[in-house]
Amino acid sequence: MKIAILKERRAQETRVAASPESVKKLVGLGIEVAVEKGAGTGAAFTDSAFKEAGAEIAGNAAAALKDAALVLKVRGPEAKEIGDLPKGCLLAAILDPYRSLEEMKALAEAGVTAFAMDFMPRITRAQSMDVLSSQANLAGYKAVVDAAAEFGRAFPLMMTAAGKVAPAQVLVMGAGVAGLQAIATAKRLGALVSATDVRPAAKEQVESLGGKFVAVEDEEFKQAESAGGYAKEMSDAYKQKQAQLIAETIKKMDVVITTALIPGRPAPCLVTTEMVKSMKPGSVVVDLAIDNGGNVEASEAGKVAVKHGVKIVAYNNLPGRLASDTSMLYANNLFNFVALLYDKETKDLAVDWNDEIVKGTLIAKDGKIVHPALEKLEPVT
Amino acid sequence: MKIAILKERRAQETRVAASPESVKKLVGLGIEVAVEKGAGTGAAFTDSAFKEAGAEIAGNAAAALKDAALVLKVRGPEAKEIGDLPKGCLLAAILDPYRSLEEMKALAEAGVTAFAMDFMPRITRAQSMDVLSSQANLAGYKAVVDAAAEFGRAFPLMMTAAGKVAPAQVLVMGAGVAGLQAIATAKRLGALVSATDVRPAAKEQVESLGGKFVAVEDEEFKQAESAGGYAKEMSDAYKQKQAQLIAETIKKMDVVITTALIPGRPAPCLVTTEMVKSMKPGSVVVDLAIDNGGNVEASEAGKVAVKHGVKIVAYNNLPGRLASDTSMLYANNLFNFVALLYDKETKDLAVDWNDEIVKGTLIAKDGKIVHPALEKLEPVT
Repeated sequence: MKIAILKERRAQETRVAASPESVKKLVGLGIEVAVEKGAGTGAAFTDSAFKEAGAEIAGNAAAALKDAALVLKVRGPEAKEIGDLPKGCLLAAILDPYRSLEEMKALAEAGVTAFAMDFMPRITRAQSMDVLSSQANLAGYKAVVDAAAEFGRAFPLMMTAAGKVAPAQVLVMGAGVAGLQAIATAKRLGALVSATDVRPAAKEQVESLGGKFVAVEDEEFKQAESAGGYAKEMSDAYKQKQAQLIAETIKKMDVVITTALIPGRPAPCLVTTEMVKSMKPGSVVVDLAIDNGGNVEASEAGKVAVKHGVKIVAYNNLPGRLASDTSMLYANNLFNFVALLYDKETKDLAVDWNDEIVKGTLIAKDGKIVHPALEKLEPVT
Repeated sequence: MKIAILKERRAQETRVAASPESVKKLVGLGIEVAVEKGAGTGAAFTDSAFKEAGAEIAGNAAAALKDAALVLKVRGPEAKEIGDLPKGCLLAAILDPYRSLEEMKALAEAGVTAFAMDFMPRITRAQSMDVLSSQANLAGYKAVVDAAAEFGRAFPLMMTAAGKVAPAQVLVMGAGVAGLQAIATAKRLGALVSATDVRPAAKEQVESLGGKFVAVEDEEFKQAESAGGYAKEMSDAYKQKQAQLIAETIKKMDVVITTALIPGRPAPCLVTTEMVKSMKPGSVVVDLAIDNGGNVEASEAGKVAVKHGVKIVAYNNLPGRLASDTSMLYANNLFNFVALLYDKETKDLAVDWNDEIVKGTLIAKDGKIVHPALEKLEPVT
């Protein structure tokens, strides 16, 4: 059985769907691996490192794809790439299906069996294949590094002979995987860190990392906190009080990092232009959700924009800005997924179509879109 | 008595010679302070913040300079600015005298009494005026932030469901003020940090920050270490063994930060192109000494150059990349220096020309270059 690793075609996509380490493990299972020439350049993985790991280096995409049973990519193929995929092959990538319905249909029509790694069910058994977590974790780290790079001051408290440098005040909005890593990284660098989340239960996690949870802690909050998880939406009255507290908090911040995403929907607006105007000159806002429309009203995708004296950092594809590590973890995620689809005895694919992980990620099969979440959005005949 | 704070004219100079805090303290001594409009923009100090602190905002340099007894700047004035200085005024700035002899002569000829803050004697009493230390400290921090921003991987060890992210291996070359802060910052971010210095006595300081000191620890080293300080130059045989160890160490590093300066002379070359070639693809080298010619053979001033798969980061004016904090500390240094030159009773300048600090920093007076270090280099008649 042959696996093809293609060079990514999308702009600014520096990652690659394999590492020398993952290639070695795939080859160890008896799989033939072809890596397109130069596929790892953006992640600092050389062709020779892939070759040493046991891959064949293919001179171009067509050579890599020839007779491949499974194609691994980071991002879903663009329309013009889809026709090049071998008829009947399997494809695993971050397909972003909700916003790529046309491409999903094209994949189905091309006879590709397509798996969206970003639809990985959030169950214990699938943790090692959870690409959203592996990429968000490093994106959270990188957001803080970007903030520190753009900020005209230092993060840590410094006591010097020339006076005291005050620590930076950092607010992280959204305490998911990316937010928690952002809190941890900002703490490491010596900042004073606060965080917010719509889930009162996030308070404990934020505090365990040394962050201060910013919330109106009334009776309603306390009940929601002890109920845990996504249990119950807060009342409008509570939301209003909380919004006011956050607006007041943002005024005092040096750095705000926003990380809020809603699956299948545009990212919510957390920082309005009014709020930006209330911040001190020289402050920095990092919008980690820009690829999904952004959490910051004033964001300009792909840019560092200065608005009202505040730097708004909205780099696209934050995981791609840390391509060596994100590729390495993504490649591990894919290896674990491939191991699930593969039979070591027969040395061939042996997909259990009833497996929860397979069902959760399967988008297109036998010429049709098969994922229930997409059928509802856009029926395919 | 009036002090003028000018906007900096040199390219990429974002710092300013005052902060709202230092202005407030100067005004508190009964000094009139004029700040040129927009002087603080690069440091995120607004005109209104200076005004609130008690400064007069002057519409242009000429208005700020009118009747000023003392002019404070970050960098020495360029030739065309010197003629604008009031005859007989005092000037305090980072004059970089060794490399600016023409400007020093022009200052003398213009009748300016010029103090080089970068010639501050390294004595206990002058610590609060030591601009090289205050700026180098933050430059060391910024060098690590820049390295982290350019590096395609994370600094800390991360244990994730998708596998382990190894900590970055960072080598800091030169354990002066900048080097020690670089070690501390890289440690904060979770890297494995090593350091080198030509002074065996630096071992203790490096280790106290959690760094590993890289040195051939033979008998000669141990004697030099216990002798302490700059006591004795090492033998050629030792230097050769040490150079070999460092070359071997660099091969294994992800990040190398060089911080070696020699006062009055070009920076020494620490990282040859051969060494860069020996590094892993995706590694990062930060040359903190680029303004003095650089420690890295392959550096391109002002740029991030990719050579042999390694990123060579050689931004000019690293302190200027952290302008709010460096300006704040520099302004404190200047305030302490002004307090030394000023008599609170008479509310006027009262310079003790025999003071060690005054003598150490005084470059030009009464139409002549007067500093012994410069007279030797270039006699002025």
